[in-house]
Amino acid sequence: MADEQLVSRSEDFSEWYNQLVLRAELADYAPVRGCMVIRPYGWALWENIQAALDRRFKATGHVNAAFPLFIPKSFLEREREHVKGFAPELAVVTIGGGEQLEEPLIVRPTSETIIGHMYAKWIKSYRDLPVLLNLWNNVVRWELRTKLFLRTTEFYWQEGHTAHATAEEAEAEALRMLGVYADFAETEAAVPVVKGRKSEGEKFAGAVRSYSIEAMMGDTRALQAGTSHFLGDNFARAFEIRFLDQENTLQYCWTSSWGLSTRFIGAIIMVHGDDKGLVLPPRLAPYQVVIIPIFKNDDERSEVMAAIERIREALSEFRVHVDGRDGLTPGFKFNEWEMRGVPVRVEVGPNDVAQGTAALARRDRPGREGKTTVPQEGLAAAVADLLRDIQQSVFQRALEFRSSHVHRPRDYDEFRQALQDGWAEAWWCGEAACEAQIKEETKATTRIIPFEQPGGRGECIHCQQPAAEMALFARAY
Amino acid sequence: MADEQLVSRSEDFSEWYNQLVLRAELADYAPVRGCMVIRPYGWALWENIQAALDRRFKATGHVNAAFPLFIPKSFLEREREHVKGFAPELAVVTIGGGEQLEEPLIVRPTSETIIGHMYAKWIKSYRDLPVLLNLWNNVVRWELRTKLFLRTTEFYWQEGHTAHATAEEAEAEALRMLGVYADFAETEAAVPVVKGRKSEGEKFAGAVRSYSIEAMMGDTRALQAGTSHFLGDNFARAFEIRFLDQENTLQYCWTSSWGLSTRFIGAIIMVHGDDKGLVLPPRLAPYQVVIIPIFKNDDERSEVMAAIERIREALSEFRVHVDGRDGLTPGFKFNEWEMRGVPVRVEVGPNDVAQGTAALARRDRPGREGKTTVPQEGLAAAVADLLRDIQQSVFQRALEFRSSHVHRPRDYDEFRQALQDGWAEAWWCGEAACEAQIKEETKATTRIIPFEQPGGRGECIHCQQPAAEMALFARAY
Repeated sequence: MADEQLVSRSEDFSEWYNQLVLRAELADYAPVRGCMVIRPYGWALWENIQAALDRRFKATGHVNAAFPLFIPKSFLEREREHVKGFAPELAVVTIGGGEQLEEPLIVRPTSETIIGHMYAKWIKSYRDLPVLLNLWNNVVRWELRTKLFLRTTEFYWQEGHTAHATAEEAEAEALRMLGVYADFAETEAAVPVVKGRKSEGEKFAGAVRSYSIEAMMGDTRALQAGTSHFLGDNFARAFEIRFLDQENTLQYCWTSSWGLSTRFIGAIIMVHGDDKGLVLPPRLAPYQVVIIPIFKNDDERSEVMAAIERIREALSEFRVHVDGRDGLTPGFKFNEWEMRGVPVRVEVGPNDVAQGTAALARRDRPGREGKTTVPQEGLAAAVADLLRDIQQSVFQRALEFRSSHVHRPRDYDEFRQALQDGWAEAWWCGEAACEAQIKEETKATTRIIPFEQPGGRGECIHCQQPAAEMALFARAY
Repeated sequence: MADEQLVSRSEDFSEWYNQLVLRAELADYAPVRGCMVIRPYGWALWENIQAALDRRFKATGHVNAAFPLFIPKSFLEREREHVKGFAPELAVVTIGGGEQLEEPLIVRPTSETIIGHMYAKWIKSYRDLPVLLNLWNNVVRWELRTKLFLRTTEFYWQEGHTAHATAEEAEAEALRMLGVYADFAETEAAVPVVKGRKSEGEKFAGAVRSYSIEAMMGDTRALQAGTSHFLGDNFARAFEIRFLDQENTLQYCWTSSWGLSTRFIGAIIMVHGDDKGLVLPPRLAPYQVVIIPIFKNDDERSEVMAAIERIREALSEFRVHVDGRDGLTPGFKFNEWEMRGVPVRVEVGPNDVAQGTAALARRDRPGREGKTTVPQEGLAAAVADLLRDIQQSVFQRALEFRSSHVHRPRDYDEFRQALQDGWAEAWWCGEAACEAQIKEETKATTRIIPFEQPGGRGECIHCQQPAAEMALFARAY
C-alpha cells in the first residue's frame, strides 16, 4: 500500500489527491456510480469532525433530530427556486414493496421542505420559537463529475434548520453558524477561511442570502467549506409555518439552514497534504501518535515492547496507536504512517530502552529537521507541546500560503494573471451577466463578497461600472 | 401536550404506546408512508444508546465505516435466500439526474451484499483477517403495517459485518456480539433478555444460523431486540471473498453480521412505561434529573432560582435540565416530565431555600412513596444513589414481570392458555410445518431456542414427535 511513491503534488495535484485518498485508506470507490465507501480511517476522521462541530452546536443551543430520507415530490415543488435548483440532480424512488408508487419519492438532496412541513405542524405560538434543530445524515445529489469526498452522489453532512419570530433573528442565526464553522475550520482543522456573502448567482436555491467560508487548497483553487443561509420567509410561506405572536396575530416564521459535509475532509487533505501523503491536524487526527518498535531479535523485541507498553500508558490522554505488526520493517511503517498523516511518530529501539529515551518525529516536518530524542520521563508533556506546536504550525503554513496567493489586480489583465496563480480580490459591479462573462473568460467564479471590505467604492474589474464591494474570485472545486 | 390523561396501559396497550410516543415528543409521523420523524428527545435517547453500544463495539476491536445507501439490483440477486427474503420489501430508485437508470438501485435494506463486494476487493491474505467493521446508518424496508419505532419503512440502526479465516471464529463472533447486545440491554436499558437461536423458519435470509435476544413487553408480547448471524461462507461464495491462507492456498472467508435498531426504543417504552408515561432507565435517559422551581412571587422566584443555579452546578456530573419556563404551574411541569420519563425530579421552593433542602421524587414510584426531602449539602451523592437504585429497581421489576409470565405448559391446551398471558417454554420437534401450524392456531411463533436448556429430551408440545430442545413461543411484535 505505502510501498510506492505518490505522484508529487506539483506534478499532478488531482492525481496526487486521488492516489492519496486510496492509499491512506480514507475512502474507496463504491460499485455505484459516483458513490464512495468511507473506510474506517476516513470515518474516524469524520467522527472527530462531528464531535468538534456537535459540541459547538449544542453550546449554541441546538439539538439533534432525524427526518426521513424520502421527500414527496410535491413538497420539493412548493418552493419555486428550490425545485429549479435541485430538479436536475435528484434520485427518485418509483417502486416500493414491488409496486409503482402513486407519488414518486425523492431521496433527500437537503431537507428544507420536509422540515418546513413538520415545523408548520409543531409551531403554534411565539413560545415555541426559536426552533434550533440539527440533523446528522446522508443526502443524495446526482452529480455528473465526481471526486472522492469533494463531490459524490451520496455524501454525509449535518444540516441545521432553525425557525425564528423575526427576520433579524433568523439572519443573525445564519451569521452565528457561519462563525461556528469558521472557528471549527481554523481551530480544529487548522484550515484558514475567509467569511463572506455569496453573489445572487451563487446562492442556495431558495435562500434570500447565502454565506460561506472559503478555503484555499494546495493548488490555490478555492473550496467552499461550509455554508449558511438566511431563507427569509420563503419556506415559511411555501409550507405555512406560522405562529401567533404576543399580540395574538398570525405571523410567518423566518428560517435559516446551514451545512458542512464530508467535503471538508477534502479540504483537510488538500490544505495540509504533501508529497509523502496526508498531514492531519492533531486535534482531528484519528491517531495523534503512532509508536513504532525497532528491534533486531527476540530479546530486543521483548524489552522494546515492554518499554512501549509503559509509554502507551503514559500517553493515555492522547489517541495512540502501537504498530506492532510482524514482518514489516520500521522503514515501511514510517512511510505508511507518513502517508496516513499521523502528527507524531514515536520510535523506540534498544538504545532508547537502555538510555530511557524515545525518538519523536513530527509529520509536518519530515526528515532530520523534525526529529528529536527526548527522555521517556516527561514524555507526555513533550508530546502535548509538540501536538500543540504542530497544530499551530500547519495553520500558520496554510495561512502564509494563502497570503502569498491572494492578489489585488489593478486591471483585467492582471486579474486574469492572478487567477492563474491564486485568488483575486477585485471590485465588482454585482451584475450576474458580468459574473457569467468573467467565468467564461477565466473559469473563475465569485466565491464570496468578503465581510471584510476595504471601504469606499471602485470600478468593476471587468466592466468598469461603479462597484460598491470587492469580491473574491477564484477557480473553485 | 401533557395536560390530558393518557389512555391506560391495561385498557389499550397499543393506543397507550402510540399516544405516549407522540406526547413524550419522542417521534412523530412523517408525511411519507410508514416513515417517522425522530424528535430531539427521542434522538437524544438514541444517541445515548449509540454511545453505550459503540463503546462496547470498540472495546471488542471493531471500527466504524460508511457504505453506500444504494445497492445495484444485481448484487442483491447473488445470494439466493437473501434476495428471496428481501425482494418483497424493497424501495427502488429508477431515475437519477433526470434519466432512467440502466440498472435500478435498491435503497439498502441491509448491507451484506455491498459489504461482500468490497471485502472481496480488500481481503487478500490471512494477514488481512479478521475484518471487524460496524456501520451506523439508515435502512429502508417497505413495511405494510407500521408503528413508530417498532416497524417503520426507514429506520436507524447499526450493522456489524465481519470476515474471518474460519467458520468457528465467525460463529464465535456472532455469539460474542449477541452477548454484547444482552449486556447492553440489561446493564444500560434495564431490559431483561433471553438469548437463543432462531428456528430455521425465523432466521435471517442468507444466514446459516441466526441468534437473537428477546424481551418481554408490558403486554407480555415478545420483541426481538437485537440479532446476530453466522453467515457461513454464503456471502463469501456469492461475492468471491477469498484469502490466501498461511499455506498459500486460496480459501473462502466466513462472515457474520449483527444489528440493533431504533426498534429498541420501542422496547424501552413498552418494558418500563406506566400509565403516567415513559419511565427511562437512568443510564440512557436524555435528562437524568429535571429541576423544577416553585415560587409565588418575584422575590421567591429570585431566591429559588439562585439556589437552583447552585444545585445545577453541584449536579454537573449528571444530565440535568432546569425547567424555568414561565406561565406554567409546577403541577403541569410535574406531569409533563413524568410523561417524558425523567428518572429524578428535584423540586426547590422557598421552604427548601430557607432550610437548605430539596425534594426528590423518583419517576419509577410516582406519588408520595417515591418522594423524600434531602439536604442540599451532599445532594450529588444522594442523586447518584437514587439513580443507581432506580436503574436496579426498574430492571428488577421487569425481571419479575417476565418471570411471572413465562409458563411451562404440560399439554397443548395449557400451551394455548399460556400464550394468552405470556410466553410458553415447550419441547418442540424443530419442524417448519409444525411451527407454521402452531402459528396459525395460536398467533404465536417460536421466538428462539434458548441457550439455557433443561437437558434431556421430550415430546413436541404440538405434534408429540420426539424433541431435543425446548423453544420459547410467544406472540411477538
